[in-house]
Amino acid sequence: MSRISYAQSADSVILAHFFETALVKDKAYSDLHDICKQCGSRLSGSDGAAKAVVLVQKILNSMGLDSVWLQDVMVPHWVRGEKEQASISSTVLKLNQSVPVCALGGSVHSTVDGLNAQVIEVKGLGQLEKMNKADIKGKIVFYNEAFDQSFRETFNAYGISVAQRWGGAMEAARYGAVGVVVRSMSQHVDEWPHTGVMGYNDSLVKIPAVAISTKGAELLSESLAKDKNLRFYFKTQCQTLADAPSYNVIAEIKGTEYPNEVIVVGGHLDSWDLAEGAQDDGAGVVQSIEVLRLFKTTGYKPKRTIRFVAFMNEENGGKGGAKYAEWAKTNGERHIAAIESDAGGFTPRGFSMEGSDTLREYVKRAWKPLLDQFEIGSLDDVGAGADVSHLKDNCTLIGELHPDSQRYFDFHHSARDTWENVNDRELEMGAAAMASFVYLIDKYGLGK
Amino acid sequence: MSRISYAQSADSVILAHFFETALVKDKAYSDLHDICKQCGSRLSGSDGAAKAVVLVQKILNSMGLDSVWLQDVMVPHWVRGEKEQASISSTVLKLNQSVPVCALGGSVHSTVDGLNAQVIEVKGLGQLEKMNKADIKGKIVFYNEAFDQSFRETFNAYGISVAQRWGGAMEAARYGAVGVVVRSMSQHVDEWPHTGVMGYNDSLVKIPAVAISTKGAELLSESLAKDKNLRFYFKTQCQTLADAPSYNVIAEIKGTEYPNEVIVVGGHLDSWDLAEGAQDDGAGVVQSIEVLRLFKTTGYKPKRTIRFVAFMNEENGGKGGAKYAEWAKTNGERHIAAIESDAGGFTPRGFSMEGSDTLREYVKRAWKPLLDQFEIGSLDDVGAGADVSHLKDNCTLIGELHPDSQRYFDFHHSARDTWENVNDRELEMGAAAMASFVYLIDKYGLGK
Repeated sequence: MSRISYAQSADSVILAHFFETALVKDKAYSDLHDICKQCGSRLSGSDGAAKAVVLVQKILNSMGLDSVWLQDVMVPHWVRGEKEQASISSTVLKLNQSVPVCALGGSVHSTVDGLNAQVIEVKGLGQLEKMNKADIKGKIVFYNEAFDQSFRETFNAYGISVAQRWGGAMEAARYGAVGVVVRSMSQHVDEWPHTGVMGYNDSLVKIPAVAISTKGAELLSESLAKDKNLRFYFKTQCQTLADAPSYNVIAEIKGTEYPNEVIVVGGHLDSWDLAEGAQDDGAGVVQSIEVLRLFKTTGYKPKRTIRFVAFMNEENGGKGGAKYAEWAKTNGERHIAAIESDAGGFTPRGFSMEGSDTLREYVKRAWKPLLDQFEIGSLDDVGAGADVSHLKDNCTLIGELHPDSQRYFDFHHSARDTWENVNDRELEMGAAAMASFVYLIDKYGLGK
Repeated sequence: MSRISYAQSADSVILAHFFETALVKDKAYSDLHDICKQCGSRLSGSDGAAKAVVLVQKILNSMGLDSVWLQDVMVPHWVRGEKEQASISSTVLKLNQSVPVCALGGSVHSTVDGLNAQVIEVKGLGQLEKMNKADIKGKIVFYNEAFDQSFRETFNAYGISVAQRWGGAMEAARYGAVGVVVRSMSQHVDEWPHTGVMGYNDSLVKIPAVAISTKGAELLSESLAKDKNLRFYFKTQCQTLADAPSYNVIAEIKGTEYPNEVIVVGGHLDSWDLAEGAQDDGAGVVQSIEVLRLFKTTGYKPKRTIRFVAFMNEENGGKGGAKYAEWAKTNGERHIAAIESDAGGFTPRGFSMEGSDTLREYVKRAWKPLLDQFEIGSLDDVGAGADVSHLKDNCTLIGELHPDSQRYFDFHHSARDTWENVNDRELEMGAAAMASFVYLIDKYGLGK
């Protein structure tokens, strides 16, 4: 294929410069290496999260920015304890097979000897509601709704299936279940359990919840088809400790013309505890840092203030995003845009946006042809990152980098989410895409 | 992110159906498994290539198509022989380090004892021309031009660096070099040598040529900087045998209204011999088969004849593509479009095209908004697959599926090009993209 000939507009030249600089001189991938390998997993309240706050502050301090600061935030502190155990046993099937599980984030632990009970399988919360409730009492509810493969966007499949992870334990407890096992949120059938946050209803008994690998889920389902009286055993030691002090890490380049107008770029610094949180969301943190670095490296002096925020606690509480938004409101900060990266460091396709329809149409009309030259002109999705969503009512436009999503759930919240599973060039192109979008917002404003 | 709401046009509904069917019921990934695991590598003239002809014919025969046939073609038959050996030795540096190499396709072998000589390093053919020619005589020329990382499209970096692989031996021979070592065509620094075709000038001595892994190239370059008299050793046993009989595998669905107007979809069935040729180009073969299957599965009856061609010998001769084009011309076949997939089974972005400027502009104007809904609206690249390029003068539009290219050269022509390194969903979306584009061409024609 021959190289695209960029339209010779000034903006096109600048965007090309962002991409070339990111691909050749980028430090995002080495920053990500350091965050992943020096800090490890970074669940809120953990040592890893504390180390990451220090490291990111250090990186930002080395960049010659106008200011770098920490913002206090109290966060939940859940710990997994020793590695979970689980098995399927059936005398009828002569089966006693251990299967990979992990406690869901926020779950209470099982009894010391573990939980051992019969299992009732349902495909999601909807099917639970239709069951004979007497059949649920005393059993483990096995939520086995698989991802709907028909969606091109894997996040849409996740958006449906994740309801059973979040609400599974509270709904099952309502009918006397003693525990829940949830199929891992992933397209593929493999050995990796995927954790993630779950909720309880304080007026109901809190029952322990685990995710099972998709392959384990298939085995459990097949075995249940042959022996509905089989038993499932799992033992977990997780618990919620007292809330812990932590921080959002913030830095900015002051705008030359409108310093009081703020454009936020960010990702979340916390991660789940099974791996290094490389795609989720070390990638978003280093890409957002890279936006500021690309502006410095290429000599672009923004008219508006470009503020980086590494949000703490996106995964299990959203306290960092809420704290930032509350502070911004109290402080009378004027936000014109807030763009998050929290969908993985894969090749960028465009941006999702939330704002008025008029504004989104304006952005598409004004910038899609230019962004299309860089294959980042996909602007149809409505949405924004979880952290910047807290700013919704006080920000003209919130949004999120939209990368290719096909491989995201192979890694998401599992032990596979490591630095080695991030491609340097894809990561860097995402950073350049964010810089490009922020540049356009900064240069042209959003019509206010 | 929320799901894109498709425009409620009939075409949009049909394209959505192609994507959903491909993602849910697709057989491309299992076809690819069978080609990779039952046939193995498929270099022209090999047993693997012969097996693949039989297997693909069998797959096509099971699909209820209007016809399936083989087209004879004589192909080059080059064999690698035993695994190559190579090492860097320097008494000054106390170094005697073996390094991974592989013979380039078409290369003559070294002498039985191997080649052992001093090395002169150049960054590509251009630098060779500027060297003192007396310094080249009797030496191994080491071509160490790395990929230019600044290109967003990795094929553009390949397009530049590959000149040293193709032309390196013939140019070096002109000045009395005794062999060449070429840096592998890959972005990343790793241990895998990447083979690929090279050429000779029949009026010059034919000297042996190997590719060295990028990590090996870095070591060789660093060592040369410290000891320009170090010696490089390599031993290869490759040779070119007599041309062998082989086949293109062809199948079609006859058009209901214009059966004499042909739209070709295809990929190449041969592969390099170091692995299974999964991305290059098993992916393109199974995606093209899937276009016909999607039409059958969804009940779409094309107006024009949709013809699948599995081309033989793209990698080291292009005899299959040439033979097909020659037959088509002799036979008076009217081709209105020929779309190849030969850039890997990664998430599709759009299509490159070759045809008149007017035609390409028409395609963009007419279909980009629709294709953009499926994030396959990148239509700016000028180009077409190597096999369908033979049809150029007798086909209204030739083109190629344009997938995301960031990871392609991690696998291309190396031992890593295996089925396991293809993502099922990315592969399937590529098939749906091709079906979508072919559907539009079939339904609306190309203005002639």
